[in-house]
Amino acid sequence: MPQSPTINRRIVLAARPHGAPTPRDFRLEETAVPVPAEGQVLLRTVYLSLDPYMRGRMSEAPSYAPPTALGETMVGGTVSRVVASRHPKFREGDLVLGAAGWQDYALSDGHDLMPIPDTAHPSYALSVLGMPGFTAYHGLLNIGTPRPGETVVVASASGAVGAVVGQIARLLGARVVGIAGGADKRRYVTEELGFDVCLDRHAPQFARQLADACPDGIDVYFENVGGAVFDAVLPLLNVGARVPVCGVIAHYNDETLPPGPDRVPKLMALVLSKRIRLQGFIILDHYADGYAPFLRDMSAWVAAGKVKLREDVVAGLENAPAALIGLLEGKNFGKVVVRVAD
Amino acid sequence: MPQSPTINRRIVLAARPHGAPTPRDFRLEETAVPVPAEGQVLLRTVYLSLDPYMRGRMSEAPSYAPPTALGETMVGGTVSRVVASRHPKFREGDLVLGAAGWQDYALSDGHDLMPIPDTAHPSYALSVLGMPGFTAYHGLLNIGTPRPGETVVVASASGAVGAVVGQIARLLGARVVGIAGGADKRRYVTEELGFDVCLDRHAPQFARQLADACPDGIDVYFENVGGAVFDAVLPLLNVGARVPVCGVIAHYNDETLPPGPDRVPKLMALVLSKRIRLQGFIILDHYADGYAPFLRDMSAWVAAGKVKLREDVVAGLENAPAALIGLLEGKNFGKVVVRVAD
Repeated sequence: MPQSPTINRRIVLAARPHGAPTPRDFRLEETAVPVPAEGQVLLRTVYLSLDPYMRGRMSEAPSYAPPTALGETMVGGTVSRVVASRHPKFREGDLVLGAAGWQDYALSDGHDLMPIPDTAHPSYALSVLGMPGFTAYHGLLNIGTPRPGETVVVASASGAVGAVVGQIARLLGARVVGIAGGADKRRYVTEELGFDVCLDRHAPQFARQLADACPDGIDVYFENVGGAVFDAVLPLLNVGARVPVCGVIAHYNDETLPPGPDRVPKLMALVLSKRIRLQGFIILDHYADGYAPFLRDMSAWVAAGKVKLREDVVAGLENAPAALIGLLEGKNFGKVVVRVAD
Repeated sequence: MPQSPTINRRIVLAARPHGAPTPRDFRLEETAVPVPAEGQVLLRTVYLSLDPYMRGRMSEAPSYAPPTALGETMVGGTVSRVVASRHPKFREGDLVLGAAGWQDYALSDGHDLMPIPDTAHPSYALSVLGMPGFTAYHGLLNIGTPRPGETVVVASASGAVGAVVGQIARLLGARVVGIAGGADKRRYVTEELGFDVCLDRHAPQFARQLADACPDGIDVYFENVGGAVFDAVLPLLNVGARVPVCGVIAHYNDETLPPGPDRVPKLMALVLSKRIRLQGFIILDHYADGYAPFLRDMSAWVAAGKVKLREDVVAGLENAPAALIGLLEGKNFGKVVVRVAD
């Protein structure tokens, strides 16, 4: 009989980053493994999801969610195994989707836990069948509303959200232009994910290439990056274009605004003359109404092999800080999950 | 029996303005009154509508409608009397809504003519019961979607669109904050139109006054001005706010972009964190589906005295250029119509 674990490793926010986070902004600590009270379970983290939104939580700036306090464990979605249960609904060995954060062990009273939808591929609960997949599904179907034959553009095309956006758009009959960094990612996006085209955002002629790749203009731009990609997309937007805004990762590390001129009046004039719908959304708002239909549709697509996703698996909790830093620089190739335990 | 008229006065675009239009950009010409062919009517302009969109047509910059060519008659909506008819559907003396432009007489084959909805007040066909009213109705109801108790902000509150936006929003149970220039307009907006508050956009403390007037934030901002009003509105927008974009009059005369920093990334971050819907619309897109229900609702509201509008009547076609220049500077008080004939 194995000895009960006694040490919980956790990674806390050590300092608020200025610009890009550095390893010094994180600290690995060891504490005692907590003991579940009546009505609680003890969770062992198996997979930890790393996502761009985490950069926002590291800052004090007001956002849609409160910042992580200094010294607190970094937040994050997890696939965990129940290792001790004093809760009637959970048994030892159950795999659950939760938000245990960047640590080996955590307690839960069960309210924040969900069953893992597809046990053949449990880490998909953190991507295709979880928050990133739901983000792609909701933003594309409810704001982007692509019609057959329309052109959909999505950046971070090999990432967790972008890859799913493009695959759903293809299922709906749209023409899909992805944007990714580097030849390997681009090949994966067209050959494995089935996008019609994938461009390199680092190409010196990127804006012209995008125009060439969108001869009929752009009907839906799924915004998850901002920056130079957004700038190249704007002049190509068609009358009636829809722009679901789910992230502006290019700006998460910004400390100051870029130099002028101020293009806000020009953007607003474009929104008017092209009748553009620009709409932000935060997926946390939509779980109550939208999660069940998402999970039904996406589970069917995954089971049929119509939607898939490469995972960029990082071994070991201690490597999570470097992996998040790399994710914010676009160095990952696929959905980043940290394998914390077997 | 009166002699048939022989001279048609028309105002043509003489030069493309740089910045604000000047009288030299217009030219009054005299031509022969045209003679209707079989299937045509000859129209005498009674009222000519002046509207901010006309500034766009004077420029060559690409927009949602082609520019007026140099030497061509300025475009514009009109209430006209049929003075000669060779068309089976029209009789001499009929009042019709059309687009005869800045001139005394025009021919039509009838395809662009509509009956005047409320003959007790025919010029309303150019405002409350016409394009500006439809603009207000469509943008507010289909994009703004105000709910009872929400706060709606609209600029140019004594103008044709803004006044109708605010009155409909009040009918729907929203709290309405208007913005206008000068004490007379502000008094009219609150006392005659029933807005809850009306602020002066020229007040030195305008941004603070707007914050004070919107203690629960802003749920709907009907954008028809841009500039400093938009800047003051942005930080007050609530989560889930809707911004129908129907005009950016503050920028129509801009020749260059304002100095930096470039606030586009900040705007996009706000759109995301507050889940804002920013949507442009051009009312010409919506006549086929939306005009009949608009006319039904608005006619009932006008008949019941629930929606009204002050008109700023300019006497004489020759005064139209100065009136448009004044309109773009906000010097009008109410909907500007030029009385071209009795």
